[in-house]
Amino acid sequence: MSVARVLVNGDPDAPVAPEDRGLSYGDGLFETILFVAGNAPLWHRHMARLAAGCARLLLPAPAPELLATEASAVSAGLPRAVVRIVITRGVAPRGYRVPDTTCTTRIVTASPAPDANGGWYHHGVQVRWCALRLSEQPALAGIKHLNRLEQVLARAEWSDEAVVEGLLCDQQERVISATSANLFVVIDGRLITPALDRCGVAGVARAELLAHAVDGRTRDLSVAELMQADEVFLSNSVRGIIPVVRLQDRRWAVGPITRELQAHWRRLGMSPEGA
Amino acid sequence: MSVARVLVNGDPDAPVAPEDRGLSYGDGLFETILFVAGNAPLWHRHMARLAAGCARLLLPAPAPELLATEASAVSAGLPRAVVRIVITRGVAPRGYRVPDTTCTTRIVTASPAPDANGGWYHHGVQVRWCALRLSEQPALAGIKHLNRLEQVLARAEWSDEAVVEGLLCDQQERVISATSANLFVVIDGRLITPALDRCGVAGVARAELLAHAVDGRTRDLSVAELMQADEVFLSNSVRGIIPVVRLQDRRWAVGPITRELQAHWRRLGMSPEGA
Repeated sequence: MSVARVLVNGDPDAPVAPEDRGLSYGDGLFETILFVAGNAPLWHRHMARLAAGCARLLLPAPAPELLATEASAVSAGLPRAVVRIVITRGVAPRGYRVPDTTCTTRIVTASPAPDANGGWYHHGVQVRWCALRLSEQPALAGIKHLNRLEQVLARAEWSDEAVVEGLLCDQQERVISATSANLFVVIDGRLITPALDRCGVAGVARAELLAHAVDGRTRDLSVAELMQADEVFLSNSVRGIIPVVRLQDRRWAVGPITRELQAHWRRLGMSPEGA
Repeated sequence: MSVARVLVNGDPDAPVAPEDRGLSYGDGLFETILFVAGNAPLWHRHMARLAAGCARLLLPAPAPELLATEASAVSAGLPRAVVRIVITRGVAPRGYRVPDTTCTTRIVTASPAPDANGGWYHHGVQVRWCALRLSEQPALAGIKHLNRLEQVLARAEWSDEAVVEGLLCDQQERVISATSANLFVVIDGRLITPALDRCGVAGVARAELLAHAVDGRTRDLSVAELMQADEVFLSNSVRGIIPVVRLQDRRWAVGPITRELQAHWRRLGMSPEGA
């Protein structure tokens, strides 16, 4: 999938400096935002997370209006676009020290959204456990920063196309998420997703579902609880709500709460036509 | 400090693609190498660490001969240069998945080495404790990867110019390193540096000192042991061997083993004239 259009600090022809701190240290944040017919239904949630991430990383937050203008420009004409916004600490002298004056780098790109896989959506997917254990770092937990080597290594653990995602635990064997999706379970009719105050990325789809669900909550989740759950699904702001139907020898049917949340997703305007 | 010269995949005019995985995920490695009059005395150690890092991250390792040629080209004419080599997983489709065929991006830059601070070298420096605790990730420990937000946040904890470095512990309160240097202590005449199998960067200066010292070893180190140590110093391949003389209320004199290792560093050709 090629990048259709790029703006670097608003300029379609500007390069990224080789000494940008985003490249040197992963010193920045990103958002990956689905635009459907020019609209991003979860835009305000993406902006809220980005602002929270900027505060955590001591970065000046970009103006949402500017980002909206640039996101619209790069995604114009694409019926379904994935807009990626990257904010880095920009160019600074060598060394970890945060410069007194930060001039952030802002990269906004758009590419055609991947084809929705209707089979995944309707019938669910198979997942596996990853061997890698996420490290615990409260200072970075929850935000969508650019330090993603754990996810890269976890995703490299399998190549079987039949396995769509890998589930990750932390070093205390608490279930946290998939490599690029949040995880939800239904236990006794209650929607539960792992707490993400020590590791993981707090997805905007996760936030939307927690806000919508009457009885949704976050807490620690054990492997045994997951295996005994009545429903399991993944959430991702681009791919939507994907039921999990197989993990090792365990099989699940797609349950009613998963279907209800998929219907909510459709009402938001996020689901592909026909899915 | 400005970057004097840059080669991106050997090309002085090539840009870095905004969708490079080095920028998207910090998916890569780096080395920062001191060249003195065109020579890099620790070159082979840098290449060994880079190769080990590539193996860990499932990256094809670049040819050391090619890197040597490019490092010489960018640093030519600089009496003391810092050459930075960055290897990333290059441009690939969106998502964490490692592409079947990786075409790495190779960025080689040179800048004038910072002025040696003779005062630091002779009289030692003051350090402080950082509040941030390093996370434990054996899959990434020891290598010099591009995910450095912990170091950025730790270095942002103080701005007092009198404090040269911050010391970092892991979440079990084991002492690990400084933000951009390794840490050594001398206890009962024995040279000790923290084990780095759960977090931290295994510096090439550290490796050189461990290879040189008759009685050097790596093991876990507690805060209490550090505070009671006879000598404390920092090692960094660019800045050399910097004695620690103050931490909170604790004062140290610069000890004989520190001085002997500084002499070794000078014999390697790494120390500035007169320092």
